[in-house]
Amino acid sequence: MELNITRPTLLLDEAKMLANLDRMLQKAQRTGTELVPHFKTHQSREIAGLFRARGVDRISVSSVKMAEYFAQNGWKDITVAFPLNPLEVDALNVLLEQGVKLTVLVADPAVIQHVAGRFKQTVNVLVEVDAGYGRSGLKATRVDLFERVLKALTNDESLRFYGLYCHPGNTYQANSIDDIRQIWKESIEKLLELKNTLGLSECVIRMGDTPGCTVVEYMQGVDEMGPGNFIFYDLVMNYLNVCDETDIAVAVACPVVAKYADRNQIVVHGGAVHFSKDHLFDANEQKFFGEMVILQERGWSSIIPEARLTSLSQEHGVLSVDDETFEAIEIGDVLGFLPIHSCLTANLLKSYLTLDGKRYEHMETVMS
Amino acid sequence: MELNITRPTLLLDEAKMLANLDRMLQKAQRTGTELVPHFKTHQSREIAGLFRARGVDRISVSSVKMAEYFAQNGWKDITVAFPLNPLEVDALNVLLEQGVKLTVLVADPAVIQHVAGRFKQTVNVLVEVDAGYGRSGLKATRVDLFERVLKALTNDESLRFYGLYCHPGNTYQANSIDDIRQIWKESIEKLLELKNTLGLSECVIRMGDTPGCTVVEYMQGVDEMGPGNFIFYDLVMNYLNVCDETDIAVAVACPVVAKYADRNQIVVHGGAVHFSKDHLFDANEQKFFGEMVILQERGWSSIIPEARLTSLSQEHGVLSVDDETFEAIEIGDVLGFLPIHSCLTANLLKSYLTLDGKRYEHMETVMS
Repeated sequence: MELNITRPTLLLDEAKMLANLDRMLQKAQRTGTELVPHFKTHQSREIAGLFRARGVDRISVSSVKMAEYFAQNGWKDITVAFPLNPLEVDALNVLLEQGVKLTVLVADPAVIQHVAGRFKQTVNVLVEVDAGYGRSGLKATRVDLFERVLKALTNDESLRFYGLYCHPGNTYQANSIDDIRQIWKESIEKLLELKNTLGLSECVIRMGDTPGCTVVEYMQGVDEMGPGNFIFYDLVMNYLNVCDETDIAVAVACPVVAKYADRNQIVVHGGAVHFSKDHLFDANEQKFFGEMVILQERGWSSIIPEARLTSLSQEHGVLSVDDETFEAIEIGDVLGFLPIHSCLTANLLKSYLTLDGKRYEHMETVMS
Repeated sequence: MELNITRPTLLLDEAKMLANLDRMLQKAQRTGTELVPHFKTHQSREIAGLFRARGVDRISVSSVKMAEYFAQNGWKDITVAFPLNPLEVDALNVLLEQGVKLTVLVADPAVIQHVAGRFKQTVNVLVEVDAGYGRSGLKATRVDLFERVLKALTNDESLRFYGLYCHPGNTYQANSIDDIRQIWKESIEKLLELKNTLGLSECVIRMGDTPGCTVVEYMQGVDEMGPGNFIFYDLVMNYLNVCDETDIAVAVACPVVAKYADRNQIVVHGGAVHFSKDHLFDANEQKFFGEMVILQERGWSSIIPEARLTSLSQEHGVLSVDDETFEAIEIGDVLGFLPIHSCLTANLLKSYLTLDGKRYEHMETVMS
């Protein structure tokens, strides 16, 4: 690869990324759902443009700041898929005045009294359902809370009930594809039961999470899917068997700066400020922060066995390898690493270098 | 506090920070060492200015990018305290041409052949000694490697041997203050023995790491100290008993967005993209990502017992609390959290808000 890399750099294989995108669009078509993609993973106007070129015009983001960024880049229908923060109503009103159609998430009935009468235009409301993940949302069994929310919404003209939202993030802890499908099956059943119990005729059902959106085929009753990570995937998804390692569309290029033969370890420039501290465990319960690939003319190799980043400090990455790999690597080389969690890695590296040398922006370089 | 905070924001208590700085300057004076502070923790030109106002003009950074940032802000004597990367010699030459006096770190003898004859002006060379930490540097016992480095340096006029550098980061794993002092004692002994064995008359000894620089009083033989984290400290340092919690000079302000009474958990806006995924373990071996404080008129309270961020996703923080604290918190409140690792948290939040409302820049907002 002749990209003249001298510092930690996030490489983007556009062909892999577009294959991931097209596959998810096909999944939406096949299941009769609408893909309302989550842009928290790439946070990039150029990558966003590739979605638009494929007909996507409704998106999700994970913060009002991110909504502002994509609004500045021409997006007009945005779900802020994070519990509505009453302190940001003024910022949301600015977006409404700019002509952005907003959907917000209610994850606690009490929030409605904090925002009552404060929106200057109508916003759609998705009510978040906790179907077992236990992070945010109203417990699916608490029909009384949903009734309270619906009643409160009818008292405020600017808040229009849109539907139920569920991010079953417990799929990230699943032990198999069957587990993921089972979590989805149960979650969808709970949502449909709730819709029925509440007597809701007009109620969109939106499901999040990349594992489920990738592997579930039966989506009867689901109207919209909102996955984010699928655009790049990463080692977490690979270890869940949700994607193949060849689907992972980003790799971090890191220069080699030192070798230590007595412990078969190599120090690269690539640390916690590039990868994040997210990790997985190998078969020996050893923590690791990335797996090595060899950078090639047009991309990178498959994962090199027994070549993992076994510790990270702020800027240092310590790569542990076997004898053969150790001998093959020299100071001045640039190695590739597949990230554990591509969303956090992209957020830290803050720009993308495509294999043909284009630079794509990340929100974090322009919004602060 | 009337700072109009609506989003995750890094608060800086300048009085605490200046007390930390003045205490370290006094330590340097008392021990007869020079403080060559590491700026990787704050990465801020305004905070850097507070060092300059106290007579500091030599600094360390952890990347060439950071050297470029501080050079742009008037710093003229910079150590890049990261193993010399041959791919960045051109970038270093640009700094030399701008009149910056550079000190680089050699952590592997082989690097010298990669840079031979390529520096356009003289650079100082610190040779990194691994006295037991096991991350980077030449093992203190390998006298042959040091001899090889010294010989190679004499063959290149642009490379001037300056001294030995040791970052005994194993102090972060110490179980007591005595352990930290013992690690330093042994490290210094190894450095002095090496200096003696190699017959070096002119050889500066520089020691890094905040735990040691904070708690060690006996520094005979040490010429320079290069700590970074001490400027803010954090929960890692507090749990090591290296600092008191009242010394921690930064806290992350996070809006409350949802409450779940059935599990005494509160969701705040503050996740892995704000705190990083660094964590500690409480007395019950439960992982946590930050401890709660109450924001007050001029700063924040002491740590609230049993109020910790027990899980983080990209933007969500889940705060687990006892009944009393749960009742006291409402949606729309802004809570404070002391970070586990202040360097990574500052790197993610990318600016500082002082208690009187000043905004201080972080390098990451201007260099990308």
